[in-house]
Amino acid sequence: MTKRTTIVLFSGDYDKAMAAYIIANGAAAYDHEVTIFHTFWGLNALRKTENIQVKKGFMEKMFGKMMPKGADKMGLSKMNFAGMGPKMIKGVIKKHNALTLPQLIEMAQEQDVKLVACTMTMDLLGLQKEEFVDNLEYAGVAAYLADAQDGNVNLFI
Amino acid sequence: MTKRTTIVLFSGDYDKAMAAYIIANGAAAYDHEVTIFHTFWGLNALRKTENIQVKKGFMEKMFGKMMPKGADKMGLSKMNFAGMGPKMIKGVIKKHNALTLPQLIEMAQEQDVKLVACTMTMDLLGLQKEEFVDNLEYAGVAAYLADAQDGNVNLFI
Amino acid sequence: MTKRTTIVLFSGDYDKAMAAYIIANGAAAYDHEVTIFHTFWGLNALRKTENIQVKKGFMEKMFGKMMPKGADKMGLSKMNFAGMGPKMIKGVIKKHNALTLPQLIEMAQEQDVKLVACTMTMDLLGLQKEEFVDNLEYAGVAAYLADAQDGNVNLFI
Repeated sequence: MTKRTTIVLFSGDYDKAMAAYIIANGAAAYDHEVTIFHTFWGLNALRKTENIQVKKGFMEKMFGKMMPKGADKMGLSKMNFAGMGPKMIKGVIKKHNALTLPQLIEMAQEQDVKLVACTMTMDLLGLQKEEFVDNLEYAGVAAYLADAQDGNVNLFI
Repeated sequence: MTKRTTIVLFSGDYDKAMAAYIIANGAAAYDHEVTIFHTFWGLNALRKTENIQVKKGFMEKMFGKMMPKGADKMGLSKMNFAGMGPKMIKGVIKKHNALTLPQLIEMAQEQDVKLVACTMTMDLLGLQKEEFVDNLEYAGVAAYLADAQDGNVNLFI
Repeated sequence: MTKRTTIVLFSGDYDKAMAAYIIANGAAAYDHEVTIFHTFWGLNALRKTENIQVKKGFMEKMFGKMMPKGADKMGLSKMNFAGMGPKMIKGVIKKHNALTLPQLIEMAQEQDVKLVACTMTMDLLGLQKEEFVDNLEYAGVAAYLADAQDGNVNLFI
């Protein structure tokens, strides 16, 4: 029987998102059905890098401006040092021929990991489909639970 | 067979506690038996808002004063901006007719989600039953594991 | 059938590591097979306190210097107050005859909890076996998934 891994990615930190995607890619390589459900700040990993023009209220504009646009712009959960930390991590990733977060996301998509954006958070923070990368599913907590309740490995990151 | 969701709420952040209670309420709506085990800073979500007079040592008084009294006083894990962040989140919650954290907790209680306060942390931080809202259970890690080991969805938030 | 608890310890915070080890020790007492997979900042809990001389590149030296050497040097996830928080927590731990993090780790080793250091993170941050305490296993995400996919309680902390 197919095994299943379901990860809630709540965090908007580069290092935590890396951990989520490394586990997801590992599980996919072991033939698990894998879902990453991006909610709250975890949605930032899926944002397009460029500025997308969409109509928004004032508060939603503020959130949109303040939150990082895409995986490459995210900070670290520890030792961020005003942006020096991410530079250092990306330095050692390059040096050791490891994969960056954007590369890990690309690999996950190639391995058919299901990437879901939480529609409730999108409503709340005013994020719109146009602002996200392609090939995502859009769903709420009910869809998450439907996957997770039969999951072998369920994590909240 | 009844499915079971068991969440450890360790975090004292408004946004993480929201995520915990949204998943818990969703799982309860799907007829899961749901437990939220509040430990460490997660206990703050269950504190009464008003100042309760109880006898405490010096350190326990310090912890009691420094930690937020109740769900409404908690900060954000990201973009807290000295309290502006929570105001913004509560603003968009109101605007989009979503539920605040205190409302999510109330709904969980109405749906018979089992809310547990970790007695070991209470001892450690000097928190007493009088300082918490009603209808809680009080237990330790053994009770948590008894629930979790048969759980379908186990999360640490 | 033997139950299994598998914890990813990603966090380098004293309080989160305490929670991980309290759950692990509880599960071991209930005869679970328990694994703690230390990755990213969670590796710091396993570092030796003393300065170990090993050859490293510049960036790896920087990481080595900036990260806490061992469980006793780790900060809190909340209310760290430039080191005052950990002192306060250790104060109440002593007062209430609870176990410190180094004692919890020792107990876990006595209970045969499997402590794993993530080799990918070691490569990335330039941490070497000589810098860690004894009796660890060294493995990657594949070994983690092999344990976790049959786990009853899987947590990411």
